[in-house]
Amino acid sequence: VSIRPDDRGLLLGDGVFETIRVEQGRPLLFERHLRRLSNATETLGFAAPIKEVRSKVRAALAESSDGFHSLRMTVTRGVGPRGLLPPDNPQPTVLVSMSPAGARPNAVVHASLSGVRRNAASPSTQIKSLAYLDNILARQQAAPGCEDVIMLNTDGFPACTSIGNMLALTNQGWVTPAFEIGGILPGIVREVLIEKGHVRETRLTLAEARRLPLARSNSLVGVQPLKLVDGCDPALSAIEQLTKALQAAERSEP
Amino acid sequence: VSIRPDDRGLLLGDGVFETIRVEQGRPLLFERHLRRLSNATETLGFAAPIKEVRSKVRAALAESSDGFHSLRMTVTRGVGPRGLLPPDNPQPTVLVSMSPAGARPNAVVHASLSGVRRNAASPSTQIKSLAYLDNILARQQAAPGCEDVIMLNTDGFPACTSIGNMLALTNQGWVTPAFEIGGILPGIVREVLIEKGHVRETRLTLAEARRLPLARSNSLVGVQPLKLVDGCDPALSAIEQLTKALQAAERSEP
Repeated sequence: VSIRPDDRGLLLGDGVFETIRVEQGRPLLFERHLRRLSNATETLGFAAPIKEVRSKVRAALAESSDGFHSLRMTVTRGVGPRGLLPPDNPQPTVLVSMSPAGARPNAVVHASLSGVRRNAASPSTQIKSLAYLDNILARQQAAPGCEDVIMLNTDGFPACTSIGNMLALTNQGWVTPAFEIGGILPGIVREVLIEKGHVRETRLTLAEARRLPLARSNSLVGVQPLKLVDGCDPALSAIEQLTKALQAAERSEP
Repeated sequence: VSIRPDDRGLLLGDGVFETIRVEQGRPLLFERHLRRLSNATETLGFAAPIKEVRSKVRAALAESSDGFHSLRMTVTRGVGPRGLLPPDNPQPTVLVSMSPAGARPNAVVHASLSGVRRNAASPSTQIKSLAYLDNILARQQAAPGCEDVIMLNTDGFPACTSIGNMLALTNQGWVTPAFEIGGILPGIVREVLIEKGHVRETRLTLAEARRLPLARSNSLVGVQPLKLVDGCDPALSAIEQLTKALQAAERSEP
């Protein structure tokens, strides 16, 4: 597989992707990922070729039914003429790749606060777009000894980590930054935990994030303890409950 | 030429580009573009392979010494392992392509105000990165009859159009949004006009942009009259002076 040099995914970041955990040949919460993929390309103004995506995923899965893998589905708007405006009838490019993964980590992740903020005034930060440079820059600038960062949105509210959503444990239970504040990626693990009543959306402040036990979530790592520099120690047993709720959904949903 | 599907330019928007106007085989203000390209990859933390860029540009230029072209140089961080962190020793990918262009347009460009803002709190909007999705989204949402948009930065100040810089004519001469307000692309035409004393940086407000004659600039279109919906008519003869200053630099500089 190779990509044409005039693909808008490469030239302009004009596309979206999903990363999915695969266990023994089974892509976890696959239908939710497909749904988010469709929503994301709809935000960009084109339809994801879901049939082609499904068939390429099937082909990738057929190569290995053992152990753990991470599966990436990438859909770009395909090739187009010069300029920003997309072609009227885009022919999306679909890429699917799978690589080996290990057991989900449960070690505490140390994080610093990033100076790079997530744009609260663009739809591009509310989808998993190819325009991932802010997260790369934020991750590169993590303090020594830190493997992740907490990113504020441009209005100054804690939004995400460089690789997923953030969760905080209050006296009233787990909360996560509300989608409506802007700059929040609608993560699949986050979505499941909210739907099942384990997490609720709130307008978390930086001061709260500094004094509450934190966690991060994404489809590959699941839910993992997070410790902000000078922040509170994570609440490991409370995270264990979220992990169990996530695993139950991963086992029961297609 | 084709691109590997694990190139970080495609997967994560991890790269930069330049577009240059070519007249009769001569790339205008080429050394400035190369300098900006180097600055941009430095912001991302890697060195642009300038020798390879030069040699690929020479090869592209050799194919046509007649008429007008637009030349695009793309440099990505190359392939890398899974995850956000780049490899320690990146092998950048260099792509150069050239396509025919016409005379520079001098028609008035109608623009609406975009709801998509430019991130004032990220270095990614201060380089010409592959993460161009905000500009695409903004351009797609232009009002009917408009071919461009004015984008505010996330602090609410006019910043850029979807394809270049913006200029406004005050009683004290031409101004452009100051780089330091954030979200401002350091355009080459803008740079030349500032250096030559024809334009100065200022903290332009939206109210001012609404009542002042406007222009947009980029390396392909030069300086072009811009009219915001309900805004002021452009000052064509004042734009003519900027165009002459630009052309003088384009003729005299390598």
